[in-house]
Amino acid sequence: MDHRVTEVELPPLFCPLESAVHPQVRRVEQRAEEWIHASGMCATEREKAWVIATHSGDFFSRFAPEAEDDDRLLAAALWVYWGFAFDDARCDTGPLSNRPAQFNALAGQVQRACEAVSAVGEDPYIGALQDIVRRFRSFAPPTQVRRFTDAHRSWLSGVAWQVGNQAAGRMPGLDDFLAMRLLSSGGEPTFALLELATGAEVPDREMHRPAVRALTEMAILVAALDNDRHSLVKELSRDHTDQNLYTVLMAERSLPLQDAVLAGNALRDRVLQRFLRLYDRVRPTASADLRTYLQGLRYGIRGNNEWGLRVPRYLSLGHWPDEMEYGALTYATEPSDTRPGPIEGAPTIAWWWDEAL
Amino acid sequence: MDHRVTEVELPPLFCPLESAVHPQVRRVEQRAEEWIHASGMCATEREKAWVIATHSGDFFSRFAPEAEDDDRLLAAALWVYWGFAFDDARCDTGPLSNRPAQFNALAGQVQRACEAVSAVGEDPYIGALQDIVRRFRSFAPPTQVRRFTDAHRSWLSGVAWQVGNQAAGRMPGLDDFLAMRLLSSGGEPTFALLELATGAEVPDREMHRPAVRALTEMAILVAALDNDRHSLVKELSRDHTDQNLYTVLMAERSLPLQDAVLAGNALRDRVLQRFLRLYDRVRPTASADLRTYLQGLRYGIRGNNEWGLRVPRYLSLGHWPDEMEYGALTYATEPSDTRPGPIEGAPTIAWWWDEAL
Repeated sequence: MDHRVTEVELPPLFCPLESAVHPQVRRVEQRAEEWIHASGMCATEREKAWVIATHSGDFFSRFAPEAEDDDRLLAAALWVYWGFAFDDARCDTGPLSNRPAQFNALAGQVQRACEAVSAVGEDPYIGALQDIVRRFRSFAPPTQVRRFTDAHRSWLSGVAWQVGNQAAGRMPGLDDFLAMRLLSSGGEPTFALLELATGAEVPDREMHRPAVRALTEMAILVAALDNDRHSLVKELSRDHTDQNLYTVLMAERSLPLQDAVLAGNALRDRVLQRFLRLYDRVRPTASADLRTYLQGLRYGIRGNNEWGLRVPRYLSLGHWPDEMEYGALTYATEPSDTRPGPIEGAPTIAWWWDEAL
Repeated sequence: MDHRVTEVELPPLFCPLESAVHPQVRRVEQRAEEWIHASGMCATEREKAWVIATHSGDFFSRFAPEAEDDDRLLAAALWVYWGFAFDDARCDTGPLSNRPAQFNALAGQVQRACEAVSAVGEDPYIGALQDIVRRFRSFAPPTQVRRFTDAHRSWLSGVAWQVGNQAAGRMPGLDDFLAMRLLSSGGEPTFALLELATGAEVPDREMHRPAVRALTEMAILVAALDNDRHSLVKELSRDHTDQNLYTVLMAERSLPLQDAVLAGNALRDRVLQRFLRLYDRVRPTASADLRTYLQGLRYGIRGNNEWGLRVPRYLSLGHWPDEMEYGALTYATEPSDTRPGPIEGAPTIAWWWDEAL
């Protein structure tokens, strides 16, 4: 890999979506910080500082800027804090990051604790997760909680795939990477939080329509690939040679880093444009609750960027996190690639372009 | 482990549930056999013979004896054949059975192929699975298909847990084992086939009620533990020291095999009795479709036994499968243990006894 990352030029992102943040964002961050201190999940002060510095309250306040109930918004944000913390401590960079036998067992316990109120677990992250899911159960119907827990299992299965690749020293091809990244990014549970935070209850026959499922997956992939972009400098500066959009494209298409950055941006822009077109087709006949959900996908893609371009998680290079930077952001006015149709070499997502959707 | 398995006495099973088999069972088995030959998923004639000898058509004709549409019943049965074949070739005893890094990747590809119509995969099992799921989509609404695919992921996550334990040489404690066995047994997708086979469409607000979820999980666990019982002789004769109800109880409670058999039977009987009591409480207010589903859980527990006590999968000790034996079966007239309340040392399932259900 070309490590002269300072010479890599990251093009501005195309993101013609609504920007908003919940008015109670600071209060949510403050309450979340209190919860993190009390939760007991962080082993060290440094771990705690990094969890707080994820600014997950800011993050999710952008996904659900119109949530009417602060307690719902807080609970959703708490899961995001928890997810980032668990990811750092147990998945992406922790001691289990290349030990699939151990990770699979922990994932099984965590998931069971998420689903079964009576389950217990030794890992301190388990009790914290149960506190969050208990909040969900207190205000949301079983269907919405179940959608979240199913999404949670999807996420863990994607992380298990990633951990296995890492253990085997295997760089996935583009198609496998996209299927894995849709899961490992955590986008499934994050977008499943939309119903929990807003109180929308999308009927089954709408939520599971292929077109709605495609919109959800496209939102997840755009956000996931944007996160690969946001963390590129940090990943390379740490000499990480992990599985991300750019390392995968470099390997699959024998590209230097700068070309992989452009190819990745083009791929991402094509998915976003398909999202926008399909959204316009689905929205007119959507129920009020589905409209709330779909608007949440839009807010989420945009909010993930506004957060990710500023958050210490992706920017700080030191041992302790820097402050969040709230400066202005510059976006691209046009997509970098307007070719229609499915992405070459990516059959796993080709169905998103199905005309019958 | 005490390997003098011929000296172990297996008590008759308590199973006061309705017995029935679909009238088209032979026709379904015949059509399935044709499909297996054409599917290309089996690498050898011997593998094919073992798949056919699972008599999954018989198995699922007992789960859905009243299915009105033979094509639905066939498609459901095909998945059971597929599941057993995949389990033998890639999970339980195949070369991936203790290679979690490889298994996690294959599970990811298989699951994606199950969910995304356009996905492709190299493993011959993937195309066969897609043919089955295509049938489901042709006759069932997206919600029922989605329930199945979510259940499918649960199953694979449980197998991944088991594969990880095997790789690490780790014998799980009882609590972890139960959480894992609920998933790895394949009971989730098998019972999710009930809606697909019968055409029942259980409303979300009923399907995700904690009481209905508890009934589903209890049916899965009873069937899974019964399968541990059915396969005990075969497992021990192969000198397998795998994770099953008896090896787990022997390790956790320092019991000899015969005592573990009795303890396992007692545990299983207590779960079944709780199932029966909760069923009686839920059924009176259930919708017609939920009643069909719940009756399917009852048929399934019973049918799994009637099949499992006779099928070569669990009985044949040779290289090629023997014939299915259709002799009479003897059941216990009373449960072996009538103690109420949660099982000791198994918090993961304690909520099934929650009085609020």
